[in-house]
Amino acid sequence: MDNNINDFSGDFPVLDQQVNDERLVYLDNAATAQRPRQVIKALTDFYEQDNANVHRGVHTLAERATKDYEDARQKVQAFINAPAAHDVIFTKGCTDSLNLIAATYGEQNIKPGDEIVISIMEHHSNLIPWQQLAKKKQAVLKYIELTADGELDLADAKHKITDKTKIVAVTHASNVMGTVTPLKELAAIAHQHGAVIVGDGAQAVPHMPVNVQDLDVDFYAFSGHKMMSPMGIGVLYGKADLLRAMPPYQYGGEMINDVHRDQSTWADIPFKFEAGTQNIAGAVGLGAAVDYLSHVGMKNIQRKEQSLVNYVLPRLIAIPDVQVYGPQLPQKHTGVISFNIKGLHPHDVATALDMDGVAVRAGHHCAQPLMEELGVTATARASFYFYNTKEDADQLIKAINETKEFFNIGTI
Amino acid sequence: MDNNINDFSGDFPVLDQQVNDERLVYLDNAATAQRPRQVIKALTDFYEQDNANVHRGVHTLAERATKDYEDARQKVQAFINAPAAHDVIFTKGCTDSLNLIAATYGEQNIKPGDEIVISIMEHHSNLIPWQQLAKKKQAVLKYIELTADGELDLADAKHKITDKTKIVAVTHASNVMGTVTPLKELAAIAHQHGAVIVGDGAQAVPHMPVNVQDLDVDFYAFSGHKMMSPMGIGVLYGKADLLRAMPPYQYGGEMINDVHRDQSTWADIPFKFEAGTQNIAGAVGLGAAVDYLSHVGMKNIQRKEQSLVNYVLPRLIAIPDVQVYGPQLPQKHTGVISFNIKGLHPHDVATALDMDGVAVRAGHHCAQPLMEELGVTATARASFYFYNTKEDADQLIKAINETKEFFNIGTI
Repeated sequence: MDNNINDFSGDFPVLDQQVNDERLVYLDNAATAQRPRQVIKALTDFYEQDNANVHRGVHTLAERATKDYEDARQKVQAFINAPAAHDVIFTKGCTDSLNLIAATYGEQNIKPGDEIVISIMEHHSNLIPWQQLAKKKQAVLKYIELTADGELDLADAKHKITDKTKIVAVTHASNVMGTVTPLKELAAIAHQHGAVIVGDGAQAVPHMPVNVQDLDVDFYAFSGHKMMSPMGIGVLYGKADLLRAMPPYQYGGEMINDVHRDQSTWADIPFKFEAGTQNIAGAVGLGAAVDYLSHVGMKNIQRKEQSLVNYVLPRLIAIPDVQVYGPQLPQKHTGVISFNIKGLHPHDVATALDMDGVAVRAGHHCAQPLMEELGVTATARASFYFYNTKEDADQLIKAINETKEFFNIGTI
Repeated sequence: MDNNINDFSGDFPVLDQQVNDERLVYLDNAATAQRPRQVIKALTDFYEQDNANVHRGVHTLAERATKDYEDARQKVQAFINAPAAHDVIFTKGCTDSLNLIAATYGEQNIKPGDEIVISIMEHHSNLIPWQQLAKKKQAVLKYIELTADGELDLADAKHKITDKTKIVAVTHASNVMGTVTPLKELAAIAHQHGAVIVGDGAQAVPHMPVNVQDLDVDFYAFSGHKMMSPMGIGVLYGKADLLRAMPPYQYGGEMINDVHRDQSTWADIPFKFEAGTQNIAGAVGLGAAVDYLSHVGMKNIQRKEQSLVNYVLPRLIAIPDVQVYGPQLPQKHTGVISFNIKGLHPHDVATALDMDGVAVRAGHHCAQPLMEELGVTATARASFYFYNTKEDADQLIKAINETKEFFNIGTI
């Protein structure tokens, strides 16, 4: 394997442990990433030095906390190349961001007979909000299908997106198959038809350079915890003119201009969408995660993950009775790989791998319609991050072989 | 002053610092509390040892994280004496909890002509959601007024709550005046008329024993960060039969039962209301905060804060040109005290106090209609917690006198 960048695993305290008497190999990064000590330190430093509520205070701690919080917003802005800091809304997570768009922009703009287009590989968080919106508004929900190789079918997208389409909402990278979608091309198609496009970046932003202006997406959502930030913080990027025209999502402190007994007026963006005390320490931790990722370099991270996939995917596919779902070519993959072992339930596979110290996830991965499409109810999923190593990949392959042996798969 | 309990300030690293060359006196606890090292340690231990996503995983870390998360739910349940753990929904914060109720229960149950009753001392987070719901549903929003002493006028409440009332939403303790409301009596009145009652416990749960079954509230909302937990975590308690009858608030992972292309079904409570990856580490930290508060004892905390108010309030009132808003009797007060110095803008007061190391907040405290009622646009607000000391109170009084002197107030 080509080790493009250093071994960073030493920065992650949680990785330095044994599970069931084996070295922990954490391959559940698509569910949540681990935190480097630099992010944990930023979090504890905030609580031990600057902790206060923001904006409304004039005392020293409140001023420091406000600066910490707004600095984090600027770091995120630079990281995704948003035009301005006020285009970056802090949310609870990617799910919160996507629900926000459906409940505000969607609620305001979708009329009976309108069409909403999503893909069949969406995570439930970028599927059910649109499904329920369509139902409520008597609109039509359409699905872009897969190619035989598990990629988004761009020809089908061109067919599905029409002048009736008002919203296109598509993941940037599949949380099941590791497929990267042609989001930029989809944005162009959506715009040709006067629709807006929403990108679900939960599985993309942590793993590759993302430039929202280059993609020309109207909205883009992602979570902090999958990119090593504390939990409970996420981002919604939106084009400023769209955000300004939208109604608020939640009501409370900080998001108002004037409140009277019978009426209220709203603050400008980003505050209009940040009602109540936000996860200030979480944002500060996200800023620290952005610093860490930027220091390593997103291109380096992408290269490292690619080299891991180049190494592990062919070896996985070569194991008899192992089926990999989605693209079989490493270069068509992020670090997310779903597979099953013939004759074994993926939960049993995950339990057996855990006995060898290898943490993978098993289930429908919050993508039941995709599971139906793949003809399964569940898969096992190994998902790599840049701090994983060739040794981790070897331990996965070894554990799968041992699991097969233990259950007598392929030997009867 | 009667020191009922020990000095706990040593547990709070942030308090051990100087601001503007003076000992920091943190009196902005109504905005956010500080975190003891025990909570910070629980947070870092989680990230360094157990960090994983919950429920959907079968590997060791996921099982540990799930146990940590559900243990935290049980701690909160015991802390507020909820009948069952599934009555405790984890949210982003109190504002999120209150918006959830308005957008689900409110949306489902409020019809044109119905009445919603709130009080004039509500925080914007327990005011605007109802104001906007009433507007949307052509319902009527009514306000319970204050007595001359700044307490909730129970006679007016009995007049305002009628058989047309569907929802009563009232704070348990004012974030401006420190007034405690008769929530139990209000619940009884609401129920006599067939209405549900929502309690905003943001300023109550951190400061006094709260028993949701004794109060007989239907919903009760509070934030973690005001009771020393990490930011980005809050709680919605609800009676199980009401929660079960409500539609979901957000859609995504974990809150579903089955998802198909055109329809979905929902999980049981509490998961129906916890879409997407929750702030798991935040919940764990909230559990640690509950442990800390329970160890000290909520009655002890209430007594300590009462003794601080007994000490500081008469001294504050005795200063010429200082006006205290709300109850003038210490026993009618939580640790929250709003005041103004005649002739000075509260922002200038807060800035001047900060020069003496004293952190207070200045502004409308997200309660503009109450400000209008009090005849001011803003106040300065000193808010005590149990880790504050008599010395903190003395430094506040000294700093106010110095501020008056500096601005020549009362000497011209």
